[in-house]
Amino acid sequence: MTYCVGMRLKQGLVFMSDTRTNAGVDNFASTRKMFTYAVPGERSITIMTAGNLATTQAMISLLDERTQATDDRAPSILSQPPMFQVARLVGATLREVISYSSPDGPSSADTFSASVIVGGQIGEGQPTIFMVYPEGNFIEVSVDTPFFQIGETKYGKPILVRAYQDDLAFEDAVKLLLVSFNSTVKSNLSVGLPFDVSIYPKDSFQSPKIIRIEFDDPIYQSIASGWGEALKNALEQLPAYPL
Amino acid sequence: MTYCVGMRLKQGLVFMSDTRTNAGVDNFASTRKMFTYAVPGERSITIMTAGNLATTQAMISLLDERTQATDDRAPSILSQPPMFQVARLVGATLREVISYSSPDGPSSADTFSASVIVGGQIGEGQPTIFMVYPEGNFIEVSVDTPFFQIGETKYGKPILVRAYQDDLAFEDAVKLLLVSFNSTVKSNLSVGLPFDVSIYPKDSFQSPKIIRIEFDDPIYQSIASGWGEALKNALEQLPAYPL
Repeated sequence: MTYCVGMRLKQGLVFMSDTRTNAGVDNFASTRKMFTYAVPGERSITIMTAGNLATTQAMISLLDERTQATDDRAPSILSQPPMFQVARLVGATLREVISYSSPDGPSSADTFSASVIVGGQIGEGQPTIFMVYPEGNFIEVSVDTPFFQIGETKYGKPILVRAYQDDLAFEDAVKLLLVSFNSTVKSNLSVGLPFDVSIYPKDSFQSPKIIRIEFDDPIYQSIASGWGEALKNALEQLPAYPL
Repeated sequence: MTYCVGMRLKQGLVFMSDTRTNAGVDNFASTRKMFTYAVPGERSITIMTAGNLATTQAMISLLDERTQATDDRAPSILSQPPMFQVARLVGATLREVISYSSPDGPSSADTFSASVIVGGQIGEGQPTIFMVYPEGNFIEVSVDTPFFQIGETKYGKPILVRAYQDDLAFEDAVKLLLVSFNSTVKSNLSVGLPFDVSIYPKDSFQSPKIIRIEFDDPIYQSIASGWGEALKNALEQLPAYPL
């Protein structure tokens, strides 16, 4: 499994992904699930993938190949005009890869299925994020749905629902995501460190800032160990149920 | 779906279940998923069910019928000697009901599948809780695994993992469970109020205390609304991630 979150803030975009991949509990490894593309001054795009690793690697390879190809091999993720067209290109590529392995066509239930979060900013457009389904279609973030999760999403959702605010500073958004990821790691073996973080300040049009957070990162450790205490204190603030 | 938790404490046993049942989002209703059986002075048993409603209702009806039957229609949940045998009886009944509808035999993936938490205390035995699988087998709580969840378990697990302690008072255990249930309700439409609570003080050998917590319960409301604030305060206690 996997856990990835893409979040839109007033300041810009934040993405976080874990790096654990596994096929059964005795066959696991660490792999990058976050990929960035940029044309300085013009566009900055972050992609995160969840699902069958052969599918997502093939999709990324195809996207990469097309960015490096000569003009006649367009469309490329570096040349599509608005973010909407980037999402369409990612969706079409994802659908193409899954269809190759799955004669019955792509679907979420398929063994070779995968899903993708793609976000960024291009030219005159606003920063935005799309969640792309295995069928190639996609949805976009909105004021009401300001973040997307893919992979093992349930454990880490309650804290995001409660604490997300669009005016979070990047530092606080990363803290919130680390709590959400830590809650997931504590409950599910298929999600694991290190985590990759991508931070894109609105209108910067540069490659996003990329950070890898390792297990022994002192801030992560203090968040992981402090969160248990903080939760207990939070519980104490609430009234006990009188019996 | 459903959400039920059975928890063993030093003081005794606490069970909580939601009451929403649904077959699609346009066909939902409220139904009790918690059932208690007692022989005062000798035994007290609580059962909670998750899964196909036809299956769980048939299982409970069979268990009920056998408690009311004449001696020759034993085994009954009111006469089996230790809790282990009660769990076997529940498992056998569950397996029998599922097998009736599923010619390929009971399994978790089956449409007619269900799972059960059964706990209580009988005679000389200690209070204990079992989780019963659709195949009829079961596992028991232990020092390392002091609570069981069935149904929509993921959203509410992180807070239980963090804040459970075996020396919780009943009042605080119910508060903790309400937070876990509230986190689930906020994230998943298939779990809903009212909640049923069963509290069994160790060595009481009486029917457990049963409480129904409605949506407009003032303590539930203050926990539900206070938890968001408490979480934000908890987050503020943690260090922001320096960028």
